[in-house]
Amino acid sequence: MNEFRTIEVKRSIFADNDEDAGRLRGELKREGVFLLNLMGSPGAGKTTLLVRTIEALKEEFSIAVMEADIDSDVDALTISRAGVRTVQLHTGGMCHLDADMTRQGLAALGTEGLDLIVLENVGNLVCPAEFDTGAAKNVMILSAPEGDDKPLKYPLMFSVCDVLLINKIDAMHVFDFDIGLCEERARRLNPGIKVIPVSAKTGEGIDEWVGWLRGETEAFRAGKAQGGGRA
Amino acid sequence: MNEFRTIEVKRSIFADNDEDAGRLRGELKREGVFLLNLMGSPGAGKTTLLVRTIEALKEEFSIAVMEADIDSDVDALTISRAGVRTVQLHTGGMCHLDADMTRQGLAALGTEGLDLIVLENVGNLVCPAEFDTGAAKNVMILSAPEGDDKPLKYPLMFSVCDVLLINKIDAMHVFDFDIGLCEERARRLNPGIKVIPVSAKTGEGIDEWVGWLRGETEAFRAGKAQGGGRA
Repeated sequence: MNEFRTIEVKRSIFADNDEDAGRLRGELKREGVFLLNLMGSPGAGKTTLLVRTIEALKEEFSIAVMEADIDSDVDALTISRAGVRTVQLHTGGMCHLDADMTRQGLAALGTEGLDLIVLENVGNLVCPAEFDTGAAKNVMILSAPEGDDKPLKYPLMFSVCDVLLINKIDAMHVFDFDIGLCEERARRLNPGIKVIPVSAKTGEGIDEWVGWLRGETEAFRAGKAQGGGRA
Repeated sequence: MNEFRTIEVKRSIFADNDEDAGRLRGELKREGVFLLNLMGSPGAGKTTLLVRTIEALKEEFSIAVMEADIDSDVDALTISRAGVRTVQLHTGGMCHLDADMTRQGLAALGTEGLDLIVLENVGNLVCPAEFDTGAAKNVMILSAPEGDDKPLKYPLMFSVCDVLLINKIDAMHVFDFDIGLCEERARRLNPGIKVIPVSAKTGEGIDEWVGWLRGETEAFRAGKAQGGGRA
């Protein structure tokens, strides 16, 4: 199943992205599809974590992935090898995805029968935080080598996320990264944020992360079964 | 000398940033001031490298630093402690600096008598690559934990840089980072790029980097002394 399409997504024609994102979120809720927006710096470990996540959940749910990048198909290739439906979205130089670009990706992917779709956003702590994609939840990955001061420098990103995954904790001894301090700084911006330290490499913490994602995805599927869906 | 000003830079009024950047570059050349634009992901090690660089060169040259960030003054505080003139530029949420924003920073800093000014751009591999700041040279820092595939995913950044510093090589054993492969990928985009592996933490490779920077800065100062300057 090492196959995927590459889509050149176009800038939105909608003036009001927030309104469009709200509309998309409503549509996906009615379909019972849980859309997760995964953000982080270049090299934070988004794709590796995603492969781990797919391995853990692909027997339980019907999963698909949209890989957004300025250029290249390396991530879509990696994900498609993990055995799920994948599309590569090229942003044409743009540093983020908006709701309409996400919708273009979903149209190419086809949402029929899916439980969970993960959008891996462009590697960037600035622009993706500013544009609502229509996802039900936002998750960011911060890796230990990036430093525990990142909430101070990219506050909006930490404010809009429901979950903060602190990745590469296996390498934490090499860097001066204080998890407690990082968590405190993130909570000052976003008291409700859920913080989960993980290592996508060793698997540490992945159970807790997968548990959270399972709960969210099941809730969406249950909502559809209860008549919120198209049926 | 733990003092610095914080400037809220405003979006440029100029339609043509390239033209404005060319103008600024000409002005700085006539003044004999070497402006370096330093770019990289969040947490790549820009500020730590800068402190090392200042320590190595501050007796030889008159140096100043402009720290650009979405928010916070943590980097300006670190740099001002290294004993050079510093301004913190807040971009008001913008993901890059353009030439006019750089000019606003230079006006706040005051260029008189300076040999070398380093602009530490917003931590981001996308947007800063698209906007010419007017700097004489562009340098990027890629850190080993980010992965050797980054030239494939952020090609423009690697195309516009004169020097690629590969940082955190002391931690390379913890990550699967292939310097040769990364260099090959960067050179495919930019055959003339100078690649220097460094560790801002241990000091490895810093001599080569400082040697390059010394040569460039001296050339600018010499150009001014030969009558290219205001004198």
